[in-house]
Amino acid sequence: MALSDTDLDLLFRTARTPVRWSTMPVAEETITALYDLVKLGPTSGNSQPGRFVFLHSQDSRERLRPALSAGNVDRVMTAPLTVIVAHDPIFFDKMDRLSDMPDLRSWFAADVGLSEETATRNGTLQGAYLIMAARALGLDAMPMSGFDSYMVEDTFLAAQGWRANFIVSLGYADGVPEAPRAPRLGFDEACMLL
Amino acid sequence: MALSDTDLDLLFRTARTPVRWSTMPVAEETITALYDLVKLGPTSGNSQPGRFVFLHSQDSRERLRPALSAGNVDRVMTAPLTVIVAHDPIFFDKMDRLSDMPDLRSWFAADVGLSEETATRNGTLQGAYLIMAARALGLDAMPMSGFDSYMVEDTFLAAQGWRANFIVSLGYADGVPEAPRAPRLGFDEACMLL
Repeated sequence: MALSDTDLDLLFRTARTPVRWSTMPVAEETITALYDLVKLGPTSGNSQPGRFVFLHSQDSRERLRPALSAGNVDRVMTAPLTVIVAHDPIFFDKMDRLSDMPDLRSWFAADVGLSEETATRNGTLQGAYLIMAARALGLDAMPMSGFDSYMVEDTFLAAQGWRANFIVSLGYADGVPEAPRAPRLGFDEACMLL
Repeated sequence: MALSDTDLDLLFRTARTPVRWSTMPVAEETITALYDLVKLGPTSGNSQPGRFVFLHSQDSRERLRPALSAGNVDRVMTAPLTVIVAHDPIFFDKMDRLSDMPDLRSWFAADVGLSEETATRNGTLQGAYLIMAARALGLDAMPMSGFDSYMVEDTFLAAQGWRANFIVSLGYADGVPEAPRAPRLGFDEACMLL
């Protein structure tokens, strides 16, 4: 079984990062429906290090403003929802419950290089699942890394000790971008078939 | 517009990492169709640092064997296709063609910390797009990081200078895993709604 062409369009082919946002809000039920999909994506040893801070209220989004790069302020601040994609560097504290492989917790706890790499890689995978799940639910997604991650961590993540990775604004696009899609690398440039 | 429940099942809800592979091969056209979706996913500044080495021939898959962790040998070697998800640390050499933002090339070239972070983060996002696109095309995916990345780089990536990130075996599952899906973190554990 595979997705229809229309569905592949929605996820990949006609999906575009929006230029302008409509004023249509994102419902709170959509946020929980989104996480209920994201959480199912595969992670290494079911470690699930990804953490998601949904800035939904006007007040919470205003607290993000000073951390944004100048060129990103307008397009993030006009979005009805922005998600901080983060990860928990101490994710392994939950491993005994998440995996029946013995001793994963102490394996990660003993090796900060391994646990840091696992948190970053798998938190990033989960951030991509968020982008795809958002599109699957009919939302438009605008991922970006142009912000001050230390300021975001100070403002939003200090109590939890989570680390900021990237942000994704979500909402409903106002129109389709006028510019054609930017060029993509050809198979022969980006792939080898051996 | 959103995906149907059946489609969300295929991508997320009933999708499982396979326990055993059927002998059904993956067609070469499926590999190019897969990359044609993956390449469309969003990356920072359209940088597209992800690189994909499709180990399709029996011979190429045998060359991967010595780099696999002992516990992963059987489940990778019985798959009809394994992809090395890699990235090009010198991805910015192509930026002048990929983006009309001026000077992105020199901005990345001048800052190895930034370019390394961008390559790793966006190459990982593209690896997650690969997992999702594979499921969208009806394939089953088995991502894993239990392998010797230096050996993989020596064996497959030395000429290009690409860096290995993780691997994904692809094919068609033989049956459904008997074990129930491992537990997922609840919204209140992994998310904040502000």
